[in-house]
Amino acid sequence: MSTNMTNSTGGERDVILREVGLRDGLQNVDVFFPTPAKQQWLLAEAAAGMPEIEVCSFVPPHVVAQFTDHADTVATALGIDGLHVAALTPNAKGAQRGYALGVHKLNFVLSASETHNRANVKCSTDESLERFSAVIAERQTQPGYARTKVSGCVSTAMGCTFEGSIAPKRVLELVEQYLARGADEIVIADTVGYANPAAVKSLFRDVLSITPANISVVAHFHDTRGLGVANAAAALDVGVRQFDASLAGLGGCPFAPEATGNVVMEDLVFMLEAMGMKTGVNLEALLAIRPLLREHLPNEPLHGLISRAGLPKGFTPASSISH
Amino acid sequence: MSTNMTNSTGGERDVILREVGLRDGLQNVDVFFPTPAKQQWLLAEAAAGMPEIEVCSFVPPHVVAQFTDHADTVATALGIDGLHVAALTPNAKGAQRGYALGVHKLNFVLSASETHNRANVKCSTDESLERFSAVIAERQTQPGYARTKVSGCVSTAMGCTFEGSIAPKRVLELVEQYLARGADEIVIADTVGYANPAAVKSLFRDVLSITPANISVVAHFHDTRGLGVANAAAALDVGVRQFDASLAGLGGCPFAPEATGNVVMEDLVFMLEAMGMKTGVNLEALLAIRPLLREHLPNEPLHGLISRAGLPKGFTPASSISH
Repeated sequence: MSTNMTNSTGGERDVILREVGLRDGLQNVDVFFPTPAKQQWLLAEAAAGMPEIEVCSFVPPHVVAQFTDHADTVATALGIDGLHVAALTPNAKGAQRGYALGVHKLNFVLSASETHNRANVKCSTDESLERFSAVIAERQTQPGYARTKVSGCVSTAMGCTFEGSIAPKRVLELVEQYLARGADEIVIADTVGYANPAAVKSLFRDVLSITPANISVVAHFHDTRGLGVANAAAALDVGVRQFDASLAGLGGCPFAPEATGNVVMEDLVFMLEAMGMKTGVNLEALLAIRPLLREHLPNEPLHGLISRAGLPKGFTPASSISH
Repeated sequence: MSTNMTNSTGGERDVILREVGLRDGLQNVDVFFPTPAKQQWLLAEAAAGMPEIEVCSFVPPHVVAQFTDHADTVATALGIDGLHVAALTPNAKGAQRGYALGVHKLNFVLSASETHNRANVKCSTDESLERFSAVIAERQTQPGYARTKVSGCVSTAMGCTFEGSIAPKRVLELVEQYLARGADEIVIADTVGYANPAAVKSLFRDVLSITPANISVVAHFHDTRGLGVANAAAALDVGVRQFDASLAGLGGCPFAPEATGNVVMEDLVFMLEAMGMKTGVNLEALLAIRPLLREHLPNEPLHGLISRAGLPKGFTPASSISH
């Protein structure tokens, strides 16, 4: 697990945040977010100091129409100096697209829940592992492949709308499989908000203990039941230093219709900076992007409390303190 | 600090929750919540297993009109078998009323912030300490006084809308003053949502270290900036076992107009029970009270996510597991 990573402006980060709203958020809204607005969002959030953004998902347009413009958004993202550009893929076909476009990271996803995996990607979890191996194998046939990292995500890792509780043992087996098959990074996702701080500490301690130090373990929480930020604090407690979140908590899950979205990025940045953890993200600049979402998603709830209450009087973010 | 306390139904509690919505919540709404509805709320929440409820505040009607019916609500509350009945007072005059009515506990409140204390109770914090001593002295003149506990609350303990950051040293001085003057319990309140999990752990560790084991330390958080539940988890981590919260997160602060309210009781119960901590509170029964609030507070936002998302599939609350 790498910490104190240098950010694009030369400062240091204690925690690496990853914006997933353009993918996890937008895949769950019914309206098409216009390409120029996506590009504006990307540019603004990178300028706010966000080190990594998941830009799109390489899935067929008939599955998710939101990402038909992925060539344009990826091109814009790759043009931003210092930004790590990630995209999701569930299979080698999507990965080919990612390698061809030159994204920095491909986020492969499977579910610890067999039922959720079948609903989400139409195959068993073990078949998804074979697809992951195919994504890795495909990389070796690409020119310049060595530059593209491949991340392995275990979704529904802490519970599933279909199956209920998920055995931590199964999650650990999947992490071991990912590592054995060449994953550069592990993401543990509480896709439908079943986690609690005690379960988070237990599972992430175990995942960290079987993951080599040079491979990051990322926490991806949803705020479905109000515990998203508390779960992030719990993961932080046991040593996790990379977190997914989305601006205004955009997102959800097609198989959990009442679910709210990802952890609210603005509230997470506030918590981390207040705790003295440098994210390298400028909170005011981040908050200033919300009107863009409101403009293009007029009927979508925008979550978050720091945007409403404002910063505490005299608040000094950790990232503003120089050494 | 007492743990594993027996509840009214004979079960054990790992954590004691205290409903403050009838006081902290209702004092911040403009409409009068009808007396029969208050009584219905009290009865329903006690029946759901809530061990302690702060029923009202003994302040003059021209300051807060919501509590003109306090004699009726206190009488109803005292008629509920096993319920601990608390009420807030800022001075000896209010305490006289509480002693006369026979409440089980008086919650005295002062602010660590001088400016907030003057805004809230029109005197200095040191003058408030003298008033606290007067509340204790008054108790000794009452028949049956020994049955009434007096709690000392330090509000704005983690930050203030007027003054910004508050020195933990000042909070600890006030705790020491409370203890020296005879407090039966200490409440540390983040009145305007300035806390974060790291600051919570640090302050509550220090408060617990100077507080005798037979005196409870209670955490009172507001969810103003989205960290309420995370702060509760942090306090739990360092040994706090008593928490204030309010149904639907009702509440706020007259000096922080954009602030949301207290920690949402339903979400806090969900977190604790999911973590294996017995609260003795039945979550479904708690959620069933929300329509009463909606009926009588049609324009008030009702917060909380578990009420929207529902319980996880197969969820087994810790309190339902017998030994």
